[in-house]
Amino acid sequence: MAGQLHLRNDRLLRALRREAVDRTPIWIMRQAGRYLPEYRATRARAGDFLALCKTPELACEATLQPIQRFDLDAAILFSDILTIPDAMGLGLSINEGEGPRFGRPLNSANDIQKLGIPDPDIELRYVLQAVRFIKAELAGRVPLIGFSGSPWTLATYMVEGGTSKDFMKIRSLMYADPKSTHVLLTKLSDAIADYLNAQIVAGVDAVMLFDTWGGVLTARDYHAFSLQYMQKILMNLKSHAERGAIPTIVFTKGGGQWLEAIAATGCDAIGIDWTTGIGDARRRVGAQCALQGNLDPAVLSASSARIREEVELILAEYGAGSGHIFNLGHGIHPTTDPDRVAVLVDAVHELSRPYHGEISQSQSATGTT
Amino acid sequence: MAGQLHLRNDRLLRALRREAVDRTPIWIMRQAGRYLPEYRATRARAGDFLALCKTPELACEATLQPIQRFDLDAAILFSDILTIPDAMGLGLSINEGEGPRFGRPLNSANDIQKLGIPDPDIELRYVLQAVRFIKAELAGRVPLIGFSGSPWTLATYMVEGGTSKDFMKIRSLMYADPKSTHVLLTKLSDAIADYLNAQIVAGVDAVMLFDTWGGVLTARDYHAFSLQYMQKILMNLKSHAERGAIPTIVFTKGGGQWLEAIAATGCDAIGIDWTTGIGDARRRVGAQCALQGNLDPAVLSASSARIREEVELILAEYGAGSGHIFNLGHGIHPTTDPDRVAVLVDAVHELSRPYHGEISQSQSATGTT
Repeated sequence: MAGQLHLRNDRLLRALRREAVDRTPIWIMRQAGRYLPEYRATRARAGDFLALCKTPELACEATLQPIQRFDLDAAILFSDILTIPDAMGLGLSINEGEGPRFGRPLNSANDIQKLGIPDPDIELRYVLQAVRFIKAELAGRVPLIGFSGSPWTLATYMVEGGTSKDFMKIRSLMYADPKSTHVLLTKLSDAIADYLNAQIVAGVDAVMLFDTWGGVLTARDYHAFSLQYMQKILMNLKSHAERGAIPTIVFTKGGGQWLEAIAATGCDAIGIDWTTGIGDARRRVGAQCALQGNLDPAVLSASSARIREEVELILAEYGAGSGHIFNLGHGIHPTTDPDRVAVLVDAVHELSRPYHGEISQSQSATGTT
Repeated sequence: MAGQLHLRNDRLLRALRREAVDRTPIWIMRQAGRYLPEYRATRARAGDFLALCKTPELACEATLQPIQRFDLDAAILFSDILTIPDAMGLGLSINEGEGPRFGRPLNSANDIQKLGIPDPDIELRYVLQAVRFIKAELAGRVPLIGFSGSPWTLATYMVEGGTSKDFMKIRSLMYADPKSTHVLLTKLSDAIADYLNAQIVAGVDAVMLFDTWGGVLTARDYHAFSLQYMQKILMNLKSHAERGAIPTIVFTKGGGQWLEAIAATGCDAIGIDWTTGIGDARRRVGAQCALQGNLDPAVLSASSARIREEVELILAEYGAGSGHIFNLGHGIHPTTDPDRVAVLVDAVHELSRPYHGEISQSQSATGTT
């Protein structure tokens, strides 16, 4: 099995465990995506975005493209956060540029009651097949990150029927009928735990929860309607048979005010968006968690010199030692020039060396998982 | 002059100065707006939203409508944050529901260089005329709040050409050409200071800066591109001839991570959105500033009992004493039932009494400005 292969580049996993590394690892949210011409060609062959997600060979191809082009330290499964609601029967369609729509959104407490929990080995088999293909293709070159949307984030799309500007439907439901909202979030938490456990069995090396819309909640409601469910999922994750505990990353966009609470869930790393200073974040969570982030994606439209400056600022803010996974603070913008990504990746590897000691370099060179 | 009239209800001004009050004052962002049938009638008479802003008699009428319907403690000038860029010649059109568009957005450094600073007594005379009409109509019933968009927020619209989902144009400009961005922000700061000073002369009792999009910046850039310019404006505000220093409110939506820095600008109050706990906010800014906010507007879709519960939670979180101006954490949603607003206003007045002592009640009853 692919999962048994040693990783030749284990910087990501070492950084997630706050173990010494020779350079700060980097991967990029939406690194397989529209800014890459080879991705656009693959998507054209698939027909559309969702067909691409649902065709394991092509999802594997898309996942590998940024790894072939850039010196990235991790691959992330090419998929969508809305596979679970789709598997629950809501009828997903995705028009890239406009965002996702559900043909059958949740309109009532009864709709919520009727929702079943998908069996990942049946309804989401295409995702697990993609994971197995990717692991075989990667052959231990870099680790593979699996993921899911958070319960709250999935619930927003399922109730709003798609992308929303103000999330009035889901927030109104939450205030008017908290009981049904909790029923929905409980079902989603169970489905997500099953889904991530199946991804772990299939071979992913780390898992990430994307809580894209947790930041639209009050502090009190964030705890009650988003964070507690993510914690429940983390507690229900299984270890891989050979590789043991699988590290976890929690990313709440707009969650900078709640880092201490996120750290307390027991996740291995917190993803932070660009509005939070990574130095402040490190002071606040201490050695409890690694931190992932947080370059403003708009920086990639600037000159190479400017990109290197901003990279240096973030590296310096984080400071010496392991526990930092470099990333953008949000998904890469479709208009980004791929050459700028090469500048970014090289800058992170080159400029981060002084922040990691000699000893860690030799440790990391021989490190395996 | 209207400005010489004593105010019969000065709770807002007392709370802004952290002086004792009998009850927590309340006003509501966008309290004059689409959720009110009488507003929709006035707008229909005006033709459209912008015509309504530009017709002082009708802007006065719209401003007064929520004061006539609810027991609110302040009126806010009915206007738009984009009056200044419009006066600068960018050609504003506003289609309510779709948002504002500029016919001539800023596309180059040269466009920025050519921008002039409007004379409020000429290009924005219609706003000042509205202020004078409103003050006369209010006749001291409640204070009138004047306002402007913040330099950064105005700049986003002027560069993006309208509302944006990701603010890539302005953020790209900021990274690629910080010099031109600072030229733009400096011109806007000068224009806004002139505009607010003219509003003060015309009679407003307090002024508010709406920094709607400061929250899309990194911590570092928020200081450099938004906050320092707001501070510059505050330092350039003049006192009113009779009423002395005019209290100021700064509201950065999504600015919960930066409250200490906002407090350090010397503003009298910080507006907070619903993602920040008001109790935490009070602990962080101490006695330095009053706080305005922060009910989630979606709560107004719930039952009266639920609205009262959420009001009580916020009042309890803030705790005893003055310095709290109750408000929503963002503008009221156009679908809100006006009857729910009555429930909210009454709940705040009734439930806040125990948080204010006997002494303050008598002080406030006789208090004038």
